[in-house]
Amino acid sequence: MKDSNCIFCKIANGEIPSVTIYEDEDFRVFLDLGPAAKGHALIVPKEHYANLYELDDGLCSKVFLLAKKLAVHMTEALHCDGFNIMQNNGPVAGQTVFHFHLHLIPRYEGDTAGIQWNPGSASQEELTQLGELLRVR
Amino acid sequence: MKDSNCIFCKIANGEIPSVTIYEDEDFRVFLDLGPAAKGHALIVPKEHYANLYELDDGLCSKVFLLAKKLAVHMTEALHCDGFNIMQNNGPVAGQTVFHFHLHLIPRYEGDTAGIQWNPGSASQEELTQLGELLRVR
Repeated sequence: MKDSNCIFCKIANGEIPSVTIYEDEDFRVFLDLGPAAKGHALIVPKEHYANLYELDDGLCSKVFLLAKKLAVHMTEALHCDGFNIMQNNGPVAGQTVFHFHLHLIPRYEGDTAGIQWNPGSASQEELTQLGELLRVR
Repeated sequence: MKDSNCIFCKIANGEIPSVTIYEDEDFRVFLDLGPAAKGHALIVPKEHYANLYELDDGLCSKVFLLAKKLAVHMTEALHCDGFNIMQNNGPVAGQTVFHFHLHLIPRYEGDTAGIQWNPGSASQEELTQLGELLRVR
């Protein structure tokens, strides 16, 4: 299904032009217009899924293998020093376009990508309680 | 293959205890000791792969589907407001343990995870040239 109001549906299906670096029947991969670092690209499914929760299981199985293949290819082509994969769900997590996308971000010594988080802490008791709540049985 | 000096090999194979929330023949999922947000967990393969570049293709196909299933499960259990998936390769990208791992980070309104990056800019000409370099043919 496509969403006629979704810019990533339009890009993924070629209605809006993009600098595409890969395309197959399921996905289009194109360069981000506001790159965190040189070569920052997005893997976007052609069908509309708002986020990871909705993404078709078959595409889930394909998307990360594609991410690996592109990471290898891009690292060779760009001679980057590292690589981040990011995937954000919901405004609180930094998602701004509500069509599933996976960020491929080549990293370079001294770049200004500034990708970070704040590590926190948790007591063993807190972790144990949380483990009880979350354990898949 | 296991690496006898790798802490994630030891945790994934149960030689070092962890608060495990999921386990199957390929992966162990356990709570991060320095959580960016409540419920921050890591998916770790039982075999040793230093990073995404090395990860077995079969495990690549499995790991993101597992991430989706756990994101759904954890979101229901934690009532979180969003979810980040992160996977870092190389010190410059923030990797600190050199055994592939995928971060599952539940997000909450007002949390202090501080996950961010600095969007940059690129001219259409720069993007077009980069597209030529990176296009998979």
